[in-house]
Amino acid sequence: MAQLPPAAPGMAYADIDTPALVIDLDAFERNLKRMADAVSKAGVRLRPHAKTHKSPVIGLKQMALGAVGLCCQKVSEAEAMVLGGVPDVYVSNEVVGARKLDRLAALGRQARVMVAVDNEAAIAPLAQAAARHGAQVRVLVEINVGANRCGVEPGEPAVALAQAVAREKSLTFAGLQAYQGRAQHLRTIEERKAAIADAVERTGRTVRLLKESGLSCEVVGGAGTGTYELESASGVYNELQAGSYIFMDADYARNKKADGGRFDTFEHALFVLASIMSTPTPERAVVDGGLKTFSFDAGVPEVHGLAGAVYERPSDEHGNLNLTACNERPGLGDRILLIPGHCDPTVNLHDWYIGVRGMGTAQARVESVWPVAARGALF
Amino acid sequence: MAQLPPAAPGMAYADIDTPALVIDLDAFERNLKRMADAVSKAGVRLRPHAKTHKSPVIGLKQMALGAVGLCCQKVSEAEAMVLGGVPDVYVSNEVVGARKLDRLAALGRQARVMVAVDNEAAIAPLAQAAARHGAQVRVLVEINVGANRCGVEPGEPAVALAQAVAREKSLTFAGLQAYQGRAQHLRTIEERKAAIADAVERTGRTVRLLKESGLSCEVVGGAGTGTYELESASGVYNELQAGSYIFMDADYARNKKADGGRFDTFEHALFVLASIMSTPTPERAVVDGGLKTFSFDAGVPEVHGLAGAVYERPSDEHGNLNLTACNERPGLGDRILLIPGHCDPTVNLHDWYIGVRGMGTAQARVESVWPVAARGALF
Repeated sequence: MAQLPPAAPGMAYADIDTPALVIDLDAFERNLKRMADAVSKAGVRLRPHAKTHKSPVIGLKQMALGAVGLCCQKVSEAEAMVLGGVPDVYVSNEVVGARKLDRLAALGRQARVMVAVDNEAAIAPLAQAAARHGAQVRVLVEINVGANRCGVEPGEPAVALAQAVAREKSLTFAGLQAYQGRAQHLRTIEERKAAIADAVERTGRTVRLLKESGLSCEVVGGAGTGTYELESASGVYNELQAGSYIFMDADYARNKKADGGRFDTFEHALFVLASIMSTPTPERAVVDGGLKTFSFDAGVPEVHGLAGAVYERPSDEHGNLNLTACNERPGLGDRILLIPGHCDPTVNLHDWYIGVRGMGTAQARVESVWPVAARGALF
Repeated sequence: MAQLPPAAPGMAYADIDTPALVIDLDAFERNLKRMADAVSKAGVRLRPHAKTHKSPVIGLKQMALGAVGLCCQKVSEAEAMVLGGVPDVYVSNEVVGARKLDRLAALGRQARVMVAVDNEAAIAPLAQAAARHGAQVRVLVEINVGANRCGVEPGEPAVALAQAVAREKSLTFAGLQAYQGRAQHLRTIEERKAAIADAVERTGRTVRLLKESGLSCEVVGGAGTGTYELESASGVYNELQAGSYIFMDADYARNKKADGGRFDTFEHALFVLASIMSTPTPERAVVDGGLKTFSFDAGVPEVHGLAGAVYERPSDEHGNLNLTACNERPGLGDRILLIPGHCDPTVNLHDWYIGVRGMGTAQARVESVWPVAARGALF
């Protein structure tokens, strides 16, 4: 059911079929380097999140620049990374159900495997699966640091859970999962600082209580692209889980605007190349990508390089461009670049990354075609 | 990159891995039969839209009950249907670009192929591609009947376009594409009646003008699940393009509510089976499906069979269930059924349909595992 790729390496940029998920390789490589430098300077580790890219090719590039492994959100996502050569995966999520636990434990024979836990009832089935497969599984206890999603409460409840993990022979208590997901897209740095200060306090307190009970945290993990500088400087977190920094998206661009340009470390490196398929009126053009090409959970895609054009009213395979405020009017068959509203779920709609070298220049060419290997990895 | 299926035929319902896209086969078959009976009674043809199901298995079931072929929204979607044995496909959309036109024309050697056109500049490239491949391609002229998406204006502009199509030897003018997409989800039958009355007037006028100019419309196509009874009874439309009727979704259920139960011909037949992966507080449970499992363009999924539970705050792979208004509290690992907000783009996130027989009974079993063959077919 995977589709054929919309381009081949060596092809001219103009020959890419549409809609296509395009990486500006130059900007992407600069993003990789900038984050690697930032964590190195801060003295923390980077374990980037593969839920953004779902690609072992990209994951291995991150590890070549110093990342210690990858985060994944599902067992099947972790399997796809290990299959592609990634030696260290952390399922930064709760895993429930016998089939999934068996697969996770089996993966522990092929790679270094870690998983999150937030419920005492989940420990025995996990430990039994690990024992059955002769695997040693490392475990982080997830604590709720303000996102109010998964996670036990910080402090004593987390300590009790860590002790229960540590009692299991086939499990190793490795530390805390303390991701504040809600803070990533708070619009101003002041809001993000307040949210992360609270998360740091909750996490730091739990680390101290664990220490008093004789348990040390090799890993204190969390942080996303919106807040990683804050966790880096916290003195509490030591392993960052940012993902989106490699690509960025329109929603992170809105953080940047609200911050008056301070949030500008990373460049847009991910685009959807689309074609104008209909030009019914001078004020309206229709592009060949809609609800099945973009995720709209963080708003519509932004039109790149056509000032005034606004993407609106998506249907399954169409998007309307409102050209009322445009001086330039695109013609039938013209190509247009769009910046996805939210990178992760948009990537998950595509089978292939088309890597372009020299994007924006007359020499732009397709250099690489990488599969989105863990697209649809829901289990 | 296709994922392994979350179940196998013969498996007990309780053994399906999650999240899984589940068809209630009994309800689904009743839906197929009801629409086949309705169009037969109305004396119109049915060409159901494959953009809903993306499955030649389902398409052939529709044809076995009398459908004349399938609509597709992309050339690659049509290719997947033909590859699966469907003999008659209509790309009910504008196709732009040399590669796509070549593939469309090549498909015309393997199946009966029809396509929409709304721009005179698109005719010569289409005709040349058809001639190059020795294919005869049937063409519908798309008119704007109020959706303000693609389509030329009804009346004279449509006639001029039809005449230009008819002048090409490798093309056959076959009629009009006149789909009022916006009308499908208008909440009350009165609103839908007004919108379709307008579409019928515009379409009927164009059919008459075409006749006066010597061109007959073998096909006058349009209609979706929300309005098909109106187009059926119009005396103008003769080929219905409804898709969602096989599955239904939460958004169509909202039509039904607004209509006081009148919009109740079809049953919910499509669900996502999810698991409770975290129970952090008595008022909150977390399920293992979020932005990569459901499309949220038409709102959140509705929780089925757990009164009072509300799905909220999705992230990539999580959804929070607000249980404040629930008497019953699901436990860790419990299974729950959710009705997608919008069926088409939700189906496109999954690789497999798990067909369940006897759903809701103690005997429920997996009967079929069908690939979502055209998932990700964007080109």
